[in-house]
Amino acid sequence: MSAQIKTGQIETVQVNLAERSYSIHVGSGLINTAGDYIAPYLKEARTIIVTDSNVEKHWLAPLQNSLNSHGISSEAIVMEPGEKTKNFTNLEQLVCKLLNAQIERNTVVIALGGGVIGDLTGMAAAIILRGIDFIQIPTSLLSQVDSSVGGKTGINTPQGKNLAGAFHQPKLVLCDTDALKTLPIRELRAGYAELVKYGLIADAPFFDWLEKNGERVLAGDQDAQRHAIVKSCQAKADVVSEDERETGRRALLNFGHTFGHALEAEVGYSGTLLHGEAVAIGSVMALSISERIGICPAGRADRLRAHFAKTNIGYNLHGNAGTDWAAEKLLDHMRLDKKVADAKLVFILARDIGDAFITNEVNDSDILATLNEALEQSGN
Amino acid sequence: MSAQIKTGQIETVQVNLAERSYSIHVGSGLINTAGDYIAPYLKEARTIIVTDSNVEKHWLAPLQNSLNSHGISSEAIVMEPGEKTKNFTNLEQLVCKLLNAQIERNTVVIALGGGVIGDLTGMAAAIILRGIDFIQIPTSLLSQVDSSVGGKTGINTPQGKNLAGAFHQPKLVLCDTDALKTLPIRELRAGYAELVKYGLIADAPFFDWLEKNGERVLAGDQDAQRHAIVKSCQAKADVVSEDERETGRRALLNFGHTFGHALEAEVGYSGTLLHGEAVAIGSVMALSISERIGICPAGRADRLRAHFAKTNIGYNLHGNAGTDWAAEKLLDHMRLDKKVADAKLVFILARDIGDAFITNEVNDSDILATLNEALEQSGN
Repeated sequence: MSAQIKTGQIETVQVNLAERSYSIHVGSGLINTAGDYIAPYLKEARTIIVTDSNVEKHWLAPLQNSLNSHGISSEAIVMEPGEKTKNFTNLEQLVCKLLNAQIERNTVVIALGGGVIGDLTGMAAAIILRGIDFIQIPTSLLSQVDSSVGGKTGINTPQGKNLAGAFHQPKLVLCDTDALKTLPIRELRAGYAELVKYGLIADAPFFDWLEKNGERVLAGDQDAQRHAIVKSCQAKADVVSEDERETGRRALLNFGHTFGHALEAEVGYSGTLLHGEAVAIGSVMALSISERIGICPAGRADRLRAHFAKTNIGYNLHGNAGTDWAAEKLLDHMRLDKKVADAKLVFILARDIGDAFITNEVNDSDILATLNEALEQSGN
Repeated sequence: MSAQIKTGQIETVQVNLAERSYSIHVGSGLINTAGDYIAPYLKEARTIIVTDSNVEKHWLAPLQNSLNSHGISSEAIVMEPGEKTKNFTNLEQLVCKLLNAQIERNTVVIALGGGVIGDLTGMAAAIILRGIDFIQIPTSLLSQVDSSVGGKTGINTPQGKNLAGAFHQPKLVLCDTDALKTLPIRELRAGYAELVKYGLIADAPFFDWLEKNGERVLAGDQDAQRHAIVKSCQAKADVVSEDERETGRRALLNFGHTFGHALEAEVGYSGTLLHGEAVAIGSVMALSISERIGICPAGRADRLRAHFAKTNIGYNLHGNAGTDWAAEKLLDHMRLDKKVADAKLVFILARDIGDAFITNEVNDSDILATLNEALEQSGN
């Protein structure tokens, strides 16, 4: 469904969605030369960049300089960093700031930042004038391999994560591995959990590769990073091309997420637990419940735990002063998560590493037992 | 592009948009028997109704009774009436109320009310869980012939009208002419201006029919109302089927709206001027500027003024204590309106009654002269 083109140090993944198709370029130096890639997509010699105050420090000037060298003027809107920014208040503020910048239907907006900036900017672009074009320059590993592929945009509400949003595909994505150099190690590790997810879902050889090369990815080896990002984007692009609006197979990408979102909801998207950290814990739980039900051979959850231990990825629920984890409360959060269909919880389980499937036939007792086991192992 | 099916006192207009196609039923008694029509579209035996406190009084109980008789439970969310409700704050509140009602992807929401309720509920449905189904029961003449056809949803921002929104088609529309009996006469007249618009754009015989029968429509003759609503929905459905996302021909439907939106923006959507009232004034201006430029024979604006005078539709800018109309300020509002492309204002002009076209080649001097002429005639 999607082709992979190698061009020197830059590799390209094509997301095939008819008239909404777009390219994801992956490699080093993309922000410094962003104007080369972006210029053909603009219908006027200006753009508006949305970023956050962390990313601004490192990457706004290089991006604007490259755009300037192509005669493209740009203004920047700088949001607060962090998951808390993904709410209605900031969506309204961003929409108003973009409108005050005399945005028109032809104006293209650039999202420069991690998943929060991408999701929020994408949703603003989806609703402003009922939809304008946007380009994503994801600067975190998580956003490079996850939220930049597939057009899911959205915000959180008090009821849960991403409960309001839109499907709105970007016109172009630039994944610059240089940006990972300025990313805090905690965020790099959190993003790594999503790389692992693609191996767990449908690509056992990629999981094997990560077992051998994961430490290189985390240590900043740009060739290893580019390969891992391309493999992940490719995997996601293949699924999204088949099922853009998640009526079926796309739900596989939620491996580890039913558990993970419940954990995030419980801590109130407070930064106590990053999304990728929640996915790491949730992925172990997904294998663990698969073993418990008897559909997955024993030892698979332990193999994942061993890989996470080797790469310094946390997979336990941390004993946290502010959070009194309780299995029943986590189950309540799952019920409110948007993946609920007809009040039955949808889970992504696995027959083995690299062989995930979708089911809504999981008993509450197995969910609670899995959660309680995880809580006991974490010393809660 | 769309078929018109007569079934006794109920007529049906089909909006053809591939997998997003839907039916608009028009006639008397539709709310009292709504369950018959709605039941086939529900995937669970419950629904959530969004309405406003004016419509609630007359039509919520009949709707709920009919749903009950089909075993469908429903809960109602009641919003404040009026254009001011169409903002980000109320969108957020509505989304949260719907989520608190344990909404799921399969839940269908019903919008029972005028354009404000339809636009706000439609946008909430577009973004909740990235899109759920909704059914529209428009209760004002304006919403029956305009906002219920074509899937444009949205809210206003301080910068202007409908500047944030989504294209989200309803699954079904029920236009009950009984609802027009409980509509204030001022709102009936405002909606009538949109009927006239369809004649002005592309259907001179329909304009002739309105010249003969318009007073019957406004006096509550349900056969005349049904015919006028069906003709209008049909006209809009034909345009929308060709150009769902307004990249071309759909812009014709904005006849009278470039002027009209500027007037509404100036009074701040305060209720001083209803949307249809603004469109009536704007339609006269659109013919007037067409005559001024020399593309339309003289006398057409006067013919429209005569029809509006006969049917008691205001077409002058009222001298309003709180509003100091000024042509330059109105032009500024137009520039911020979303129909601006590359900073050139898009106007819908007419070669004659029933022969409108789209252009962005109107000089500021002609716009200002037309506005000033209208201001002088209104005694401002």
